[in-house]
Amino acid sequence: MDDILIFGHKNPDTDSICSSLVAEKIASNNGWKAKAVRLGNINKETQFILNYLGIDAPPLISKVEDGQSVILVDHNEFSQSVDNIENAKIEAVTDHHRIANFQTSEPLYYTAKPYGCTCTILYEEFKSYSYMKIEKKEAILMLSAIISDTLLFKSPTCTKHDKTAAEELAKIANIDINTYGLDLLKAGTDLSDFSPYELINIDSKDFVKNTFKFRIAQVNTACINDVLKNKDDIKLAISRSISANNLNLSILLITDIINSDSQAIVLGNDTSVFEQTYNIKLIDDMAFLKGVVSRKKQVAPLLLNNID
Amino acid sequence: MDDILIFGHKNPDTDSICSSLVAEKIASNNGWKAKAVRLGNINKETQFILNYLGIDAPPLISKVEDGQSVILVDHNEFSQSVDNIENAKIEAVTDHHRIANFQTSEPLYYTAKPYGCTCTILYEEFKSYSYMKIEKKEAILMLSAIISDTLLFKSPTCTKHDKTAAEELAKIANIDINTYGLDLLKAGTDLSDFSPYELINIDSKDFVKNTFKFRIAQVNTACINDVLKNKDDIKLAISRSISANNLNLSILLITDIINSDSQAIVLGNDTSVFEQTYNIKLIDDMAFLKGVVSRKKQVAPLLLNNID
Repeated sequence: MDDILIFGHKNPDTDSICSSLVAEKIASNNGWKAKAVRLGNINKETQFILNYLGIDAPPLISKVEDGQSVILVDHNEFSQSVDNIENAKIEAVTDHHRIANFQTSEPLYYTAKPYGCTCTILYEEFKSYSYMKIEKKEAILMLSAIISDTLLFKSPTCTKHDKTAAEELAKIANIDINTYGLDLLKAGTDLSDFSPYELINIDSKDFVKNTFKFRIAQVNTACINDVLKNKDDIKLAISRSISANNLNLSILLITDIINSDSQAIVLGNDTSVFEQTYNIKLIDDMAFLKGVVSRKKQVAPLLLNNID
Repeated sequence: MDDILIFGHKNPDTDSICSSLVAEKIASNNGWKAKAVRLGNINKETQFILNYLGIDAPPLISKVEDGQSVILVDHNEFSQSVDNIENAKIEAVTDHHRIANFQTSEPLYYTAKPYGCTCTILYEEFKSYSYMKIEKKEAILMLSAIISDTLLFKSPTCTKHDKTAAEELAKIANIDINTYGLDLLKAGTDLSDFSPYELINIDSKDFVKNTFKFRIAQVNTACINDVLKNKDDIKLAISRSISANNLNLSILLITDIINSDSQAIVLGNDTSVFEQTYNIKLIDDMAFLKGVVSRKKQVAPLLLNNID
């Protein structure tokens, strides 16, 4: 059997990639044979970090063999995980999301905390091992993920644990959080050379409740109108993905990281769920969500509670 | 809203009761308003501990209100939890079982480790807070649960973490593990005044996979034949519970804690699943399982893997 494989969710964001690399380091320090892999392309924000550190991305995989030992980071829902996850042996999970559609036949390690970032949980785990020292590389990986997931502490998902971890990690990394953080977030908002199809797949997550299947994709930008220039092509790409994946509902959140608002493009046969949830009427398939930046806290659970 | 309620599984065993009391202490030390409750009668083994400490059992509850905040210990499967758990707000879980039929709409604290006992996980949590000191009362609660769940370290579920925790807790409690442990286990094997109906409900857990529903009950004894004197009445009680609960399969494990074997009484329409799993033929609805003492490690996952 191969080494234990460590990976974040499909369409990996910065937290998924950084968490897998940090979890590999912790596992290795503890004598586990484990290696980080990824389930999709590296986004520009994450590439900025890899370039900064001069390291390669973890290798790409698309499925796992029956019985393969795995460690999941930054996700637990099977619909967001590797193909054939149902038949893998899940040894451990470190995550900061709700738990759903997840099950094992045997006991396992599972650490979830309702923090803004998986790397904050890994940071606390690192500190709990008195014999481990956090090196500069891992400090930068964790700090970057926290900045990314909390939008430089502005997201409502940010907790005091995330803030404290980031401050301590910035000291180890000898980095100015604001300067580095703005550079990092800016790198992630360069959407200029994405096709509409690529754009809606940069950071997309599927959710299932009973027979209702929906998708929430999200992109960060410094200017919503820039993204909306391609509105018609983006809507066409979303419509095609709805047919191809039998979705009841598909939402693209275009999040303004300067003003902390989102423009939502909402399509599918069941957009009424969205309209009821936010008590608004879609106009031209769109709605402006004032103060909404967090899929995890301000969108997904509200929709899930409105689906029977 | 009431305080946060902390409880173990239905038909609480020693670990469920001790974990809820210890988790109440940790929560209170951390400034949470939380109180331990229980979902069923106290068994004789647990009563021995409560008497030893001179403390009362946590209050009994049977259901929770919509939106009630809860902390689950020693279980996660909704079928083993309080009535209306689906509509409670689960704030945290500390557990050492597989995860299944569990879900939330929001992120939460979840700590699972594949240890022999939930109290070993709580012990490690206690130690992780540098500002908390383990008092004698909590040391005895945790030590007792570890002795109970690992059958004095003889169960295959016992890990080095359980052993280490028990040794350190015995020092704090100033207790000889073997003397106290045998007294404790012996208290739990006094089945003399249980009716057959009560016997099969002392420590019973339901499992569901797809549409297949089965139950595994377990009693500890120093002499299997003593229990089998009432075999026919026990079988009748099991048959009635199968009809009343629409079970495909119901198993009573009568576990010999001296020799570490179990006699299984197996009834239901789908006993073939059991026979296939252990590659044996039931005789008079019974099978002797040499070396089997752990429902969690040696029975439940094997059956679950054999159900389509």
